[in-house]
Amino acid sequence: METRRKIINDPVYGFITIRHGFILELIDHPWFQRLRRIAQLGLSHLVYPGALHNRFQHAIGAMHLMQNAVDELRHKNHDITPEEEVSLLSAVLLHDIGHGPFSHALEFSIANEMHHEQISSLMMQQLNADLGGRLTMAIDIFNNRYKKKYFHQLVSSQLDMDRLDYLARDSFFSGVVEGQVGSERILKMLDVKNDQLVVEEKGIYSIEKFIVARRFMYWQVYLHKTVLSAEYMLVNALKRAKQLANEGKEMFCSPALHFFLYNNISASDFARDRNSLEQYAQLDDFDIAGALKVWQSHDDRVLSMLSAKIMKRELFKIELQKDQIDHDFIAKQVKRIAAQYSLTEEEAGYFVIHTTVDNRAYNSQNDAIKILMKDGSVRDAAEVSDHLNLAALNNVVEKHFVAYMR
Amino acid sequence: METRRKIINDPVYGFITIRHGFILELIDHPWFQRLRRIAQLGLSHLVYPGALHNRFQHAIGAMHLMQNAVDELRHKNHDITPEEEVSLLSAVLLHDIGHGPFSHALEFSIANEMHHEQISSLMMQQLNADLGGRLTMAIDIFNNRYKKKYFHQLVSSQLDMDRLDYLARDSFFSGVVEGQVGSERILKMLDVKNDQLVVEEKGIYSIEKFIVARRFMYWQVYLHKTVLSAEYMLVNALKRAKQLANEGKEMFCSPALHFFLYNNISASDFARDRNSLEQYAQLDDFDIAGALKVWQSHDDRVLSMLSAKIMKRELFKIELQKDQIDHDFIAKQVKRIAAQYSLTEEEAGYFVIHTTVDNRAYNSQNDAIKILMKDGSVRDAAEVSDHLNLAALNNVVEKHFVAYMR
Amino acid sequence: METRRKIINDPVYGFITIRHGFILELIDHPWFQRLRRIAQLGLSHLVYPGALHNRFQHAIGAMHLMQNAVDELRHKNHDITPEEEVSLLSAVLLHDIGHGPFSHALEFSIANEMHHEQISSLMMQQLNADLGGRLTMAIDIFNNRYKKKYFHQLVSSQLDMDRLDYLARDSFFSGVVEGQVGSERILKMLDVKNDQLVVEEKGIYSIEKFIVARRFMYWQVYLHKTVLSAEYMLVNALKRAKQLANEGKEMFCSPALHFFLYNNISASDFARDRNSLEQYAQLDDFDIAGALKVWQSHDDRVLSMLSAKIMKRELFKIELQKDQIDHDFIAKQVKRIAAQYSLTEEEAGYFVIHTTVDNRAYNSQNDAIKILMKDGSVRDAAEVSDHLNLAALNNVVEKHFVAYMR
Amino acid sequence: METRRKIINDPVYGFITIRHGFILELIDHPWFQRLRRIAQLGLSHLVYPGALHNRFQHAIGAMHLMQNAVDELRHKNHDITPEEEVSLLSAVLLHDIGHGPFSHALEFSIANEMHHEQISSLMMQQLNADLGGRLTMAIDIFNNRYKKKYFHQLVSSQLDMDRLDYLARDSFFSGVVEGQVGSERILKMLDVKNDQLVVEEKGIYSIEKFIVARRFMYWQVYLHKTVLSAEYMLVNALKRAKQLANEGKEMFCSPALHFFLYNNISASDFARDRNSLEQYAQLDDFDIAGALKVWQSHDDRVLSMLSAKIMKRELFKIELQKDQIDHDFIAKQVKRIAAQYSLTEEEAGYFVIHTTVDNRAYNSQNDAIKILMKDGSVRDAAEVSDHLNLAALNNVVEKHFVAYMR
Repeated sequence: METRRKIINDPVYGFITIRHGFILELIDHPWFQRLRRIAQLGLSHLVYPGALHNRFQHAIGAMHLMQNAVDELRHKNHDITPEEEVSLLSAVLLHDIGHGPFSHALEFSIANEMHHEQISSLMMQQLNADLGGRLTMAIDIFNNRYKKKYFHQLVSSQLDMDRLDYLARDSFFSGVVEGQVGSERILKMLDVKNDQLVVEEKGIYSIEKFIVARRFMYWQVYLHKTVLSAEYMLVNALKRAKQLANEGKEMFCSPALHFFLYNNISASDFARDRNSLEQYAQLDDFDIAGALKVWQSHDDRVLSMLSAKIMKRELFKIELQKDQIDHDFIAKQVKRIAAQYSLTEEEAGYFVIHTTVDNRAYNSQNDAIKILMKDGSVRDAAEVSDHLNLAALNNVVEKHFVAYMR
Repeated sequence: METRRKIINDPVYGFITIRHGFILELIDHPWFQRLRRIAQLGLSHLVYPGALHNRFQHAIGAMHLMQNAVDELRHKNHDITPEEEVSLLSAVLLHDIGHGPFSHALEFSIANEMHHEQISSLMMQQLNADLGGRLTMAIDIFNNRYKKKYFHQLVSSQLDMDRLDYLARDSFFSGVVEGQVGSERILKMLDVKNDQLVVEEKGIYSIEKFIVARRFMYWQVYLHKTVLSAEYMLVNALKRAKQLANEGKEMFCSPALHFFLYNNISASDFARDRNSLEQYAQLDDFDIAGALKVWQSHDDRVLSMLSAKIMKRELFKIELQKDQIDHDFIAKQVKRIAAQYSLTEEEAGYFVIHTTVDNRAYNSQNDAIKILMKDGSVRDAAEVSDHLNLAALNNVVEKHFVAYMR
Repeated sequence: METRRKIINDPVYGFITIRHGFILELIDHPWFQRLRRIAQLGLSHLVYPGALHNRFQHAIGAMHLMQNAVDELRHKNHDITPEEEVSLLSAVLLHDIGHGPFSHALEFSIANEMHHEQISSLMMQQLNADLGGRLTMAIDIFNNRYKKKYFHQLVSSQLDMDRLDYLARDSFFSGVVEGQVGSERILKMLDVKNDQLVVEEKGIYSIEKFIVARRFMYWQVYLHKTVLSAEYMLVNALKRAKQLANEGKEMFCSPALHFFLYNNISASDFARDRNSLEQYAQLDDFDIAGALKVWQSHDDRVLSMLSAKIMKRELFKIELQKDQIDHDFIAKQVKRIAAQYSLTEEEAGYFVIHTTVDNRAYNSQNDAIKILMKDGSVRDAAEVSDHLNLAALNNVVEKHFVAYMR
Repeated sequence: METRRKIINDPVYGFITIRHGFILELIDHPWFQRLRRIAQLGLSHLVYPGALHNRFQHAIGAMHLMQNAVDELRHKNHDITPEEEVSLLSAVLLHDIGHGPFSHALEFSIANEMHHEQISSLMMQQLNADLGGRLTMAIDIFNNRYKKKYFHQLVSSQLDMDRLDYLARDSFFSGVVEGQVGSERILKMLDVKNDQLVVEEKGIYSIEKFIVARRFMYWQVYLHKTVLSAEYMLVNALKRAKQLANEGKEMFCSPALHFFLYNNISASDFARDRNSLEQYAQLDDFDIAGALKVWQSHDDRVLSMLSAKIMKRELFKIELQKDQIDHDFIAKQVKRIAAQYSLTEEEAGYFVIHTTVDNRAYNSQNDAIKILMKDGSVRDAAEVSDHLNLAALNNVVEKHFVAYMR
């Protein structure tokens, strides 16, 4: 994808055409190029070897769907100015710009006060300043301050271009065909009524299918228990590293990772200090995985054991269940590991993980998918669907898990 | 892919079933797991963003095709014992075990005496020793010392499982559909005659198609000029790093990369010294890309400029042409760059690259594809094909290029 | 597909390999070749132009899945003899042999006492006699009289090879990607426990997906209201033709269609009289559509108007709703049409259709899909699935429709 | 596809959107609906069971590609008025309107003076008269009388929308993936220079691929020897029927087929007499196949044997070779068949077929594919391609065949 090149090969959609010079400028920006080094699905490739796609691709794919949505809505006589078009494209392109490597892992360990949404917002503001204000409308759309409210829904809602792309893309690269979403059909059914994004009535089956596919991906991929095990092992390795850093211990790490391990950077630091943001913009999967590889031979046994087990894919045994995890069981595992590996119980605690994950396939309280009925009325998809139990999908499904070293 | 799990989701083939415990053992070995961190197509993802697949996937895919080939040949009443089957699968699984990160880059810079084939061979021997000799037959097949000569052809020839997989996989992930190969049809047409792998006569069109697809992939992907530019920039960055290391300059690098930058390891060192092999087995894309990222701010301007340009995707302008590159032109560019960036001419030389690439779509001298005619005779595919000019494809096509910083 | 050719190109699965000479013999039989002239989805191509696939393809596709299921079950150490294998393949190959053209149309009009299942059974018996008893075991499996009860489930149950193929195939050719079924994954999960077909627990998401896809296809394709309109118009055209035949009126028709229009053939005639069966074996889509085309200019206005409207695709307006159709509305339409087109009310009745269609996505009473839990127990899929409301899918969804000429 | 519906599901392209009411009117016309009953590939489904797609689908697919081409060219700042757009769409939609059933079969037997191109032209003129002249510009484009010459090239040239669609579609439905064409990439590369359709230089590999794919389809599908055998058997059956009709013998046939069998209709009759055209517009695959089925029991043994062999798929043995067929061999076969089946030699002649088929993959004399070089010059693709031997593909490849009853 050279600067002047406007067509990108994409295995999911075939070809993606970029029509606007400004969009090409954004893509060429080093902060956006950084997304090339952040895997979309973190460690999922340990279970689905094909799932190596990155956030760079995903952002471009979402932008492509946005372009199609704009074309479709114009065909339906909704007026979208060229400036609005570019802003919609920019907004979706940058929606994940602040994502860190293995984002949940980072958020839960070395930088637990930062959420990637906040950082995305800060980075967009900085970019906007650098670009002479050309992102102002995109930022307004992103923050739902733009007058046309449905623009924000295209960027962020239950049926936004982000989700349509990531479901399609994650399904494609993981090889889990059951997660495929007919995004083309859904886009053809999009319309706007009272400044609200709606789906034509005859699209109700596609919406049902979309929701089922999403649920499928959640339990089969995003919350796959082996993936969870690996990700929480990584969280614990980083927590341990952070603790060792606080104690002044030395560890191999890149300058950017060093900055975040050996300093305690808070959200307010980010807002105040451009250097924090610059350091963050240097941080990607290579810093984390590169360090982990070296940490396998660190003196600290907790750090080295955790690192080695991740690198060699000797993952913790994990139970995922509907019932709460029994605390006695956890305590027993900690004791066993302490004894078996000659660790203190505090150290052994790093090798037993328990937490709760949940998923709600559909959320009618918050930003329900709206159906435009043939009679012109607008109804919630969950009401319209008389076949599938969307109401049941509305429930939050919680699962508890415990993972431990054998 | 857990140890006991036998089915792997693969976006290219759907499902891959692993039937043998020994194969699972090999896959779990850290040396094989290392292939997860080596991209199949190096820096090609800078042009084809989807092309992030790794050598791990490819090796498993090639093994899957081998399993299908074994099944097919047994249906045609060729006797293959269970031990032979496992050895064929092992041989193809391990055929690339010695691949380094950005392999050509490494071979041309910090380790120019090592070829990955030799290292693969050394690593297999070491693995065999560790596994109590269970790889002996696989190694014999790999080295073409096994009595059934066609086994080696399945592992390494113009129509081996390696090629069938990499063409299919590279085409799939790059999104270049024109490179798709009907490997399923080809496998159905495989047969053995006089201990030689042959293709049934009616498969001649598929063979033609395979050769054309391969040529397409060469010029469109493997030798894409932007990819070449990036790869040779990386070669030069590593050469510069090696030079600085020889001069005793310090650079950020992982221990494994440090080992190879600051020592001059030769092929004989590898054969003699297990440590070299162990260090090598630690080296992957993360060491190289992780270093490059940090080198962007190194004191040495050649190193920092090359690193920054790769990371920011500001690639050299490149001309790819049939004629030899004019040496005056090269000299002029070096002078211009020296002046423009206040570098010595020796330093400026790192920013001008010229070399020659070639491709021969088909090679009838060496291991031609054999067609089994209906009358029982065996002929070279280039003779049988009366439509496509296979003879022309037999020619080596050479292209010369010059790439330089603007 | 010549007699000795064993590989068939299939757009859905790629290649289908036929390994048994006996299966090739069956496929070559004129009764099986007749299925080439019977569209799988009747008039659905009027809505989905790609849906032109026939019962011939479908039967071969189902046989291919059966072959894969046999291979899979053998890998799981279930013993299946070569004779059993061929019988399973034959049973599924012939399961639809008795299907007539536009089957529902025929069953509801000129031959309303014949069900295609009965005719399939009679035709298999006749074939068995012709083939010297080589179909005896296949017929036993088909009729659930074979000792291994799970064989019948492979041929006919909620998760049989027939359904897996037709969902995949109908989805493929109609272009309704939402109906795609991961049949490959499901086959990999098949097992047998206590002589009962079961699916491994980890396959529960695939089963959910299968059931949702099936429901999708029902409402989007099989019961698409435009398709229903066309099919019931055809029923009425044939009913009218039958009535005219009973009155001794002449109509253009092929000899086979003449036989069934001008005679009243009952199920017992079929059993008694080989000629009825032979005539039936001559009847296919070409007889019906060929007649309809000519009937456009028949003297009888009811017949000619119905025929012309089908041929020109001027289909009745149709309402599909949850509530019963109001009888006054129907009566009013009949009166309007009688007046508008100068017909008697009896004649006008042919231009107003009302009936009820239903679909139950899953049926746990009758032959539920069984899940083999990790603890070895066997449970109903509807119980195991805690996410999707399979219980709700268990309900019969009824819709009423009225269709009428404008 | 209802009148008001604008989106058609197509398995090849996903969705096809029809944006113009006039195009919907054309599609609804009975003459266009007739194309639903004409298979695109005649009897090829006897070899490729999936190849049942019809000319209706194909015409709509070609129109879809035309719409994409128009969009693409407008993006490249070529001015195309709305009226021109509709005319381009109409021209390609109607380009095959005059195709008869099993077209070659008909042209060679009962109606050997009619070519489908002439009839298409006559039908378009008639439609234009009926539609108040709204097709005038479309007809001018079709006949290459429109001022913008490249419009005609979009409809009819070596790289027209017709070919792009039929290769994609025939490959898709036959399951011969090797024939797939990257039409999306080619469309992106289209441009216009000096009122001439050109392909951008970087598209040269796609053009090579397109030409190779086309050759592949010719030899693997269109000129597949079993398909040839079936088609020429059909020609002979129809020739025999024509002869019997000339002798006043009675045969079962539909009124439309009767008209052409029992009258000798010439091209001038078509131009003069609307009835001939109306009769022709009634003729489709159902007339031919419906008659053949009944002719299996006709008194004339030549007609009944030919018909039965086609219906039962007992096809003639066929040899396809580079050398001329030996006349002695033919004479010997005729004698053998006469003796074996108690026929006269004249009758036996119907059971021996010999003819010549040819294919030229590329034709640089006539309407070469033009490449727009980066320097702005325009060159013939055969010159530009230095890798593939396009020159060789330029040769007409002739094959001779003889087919005979065993």
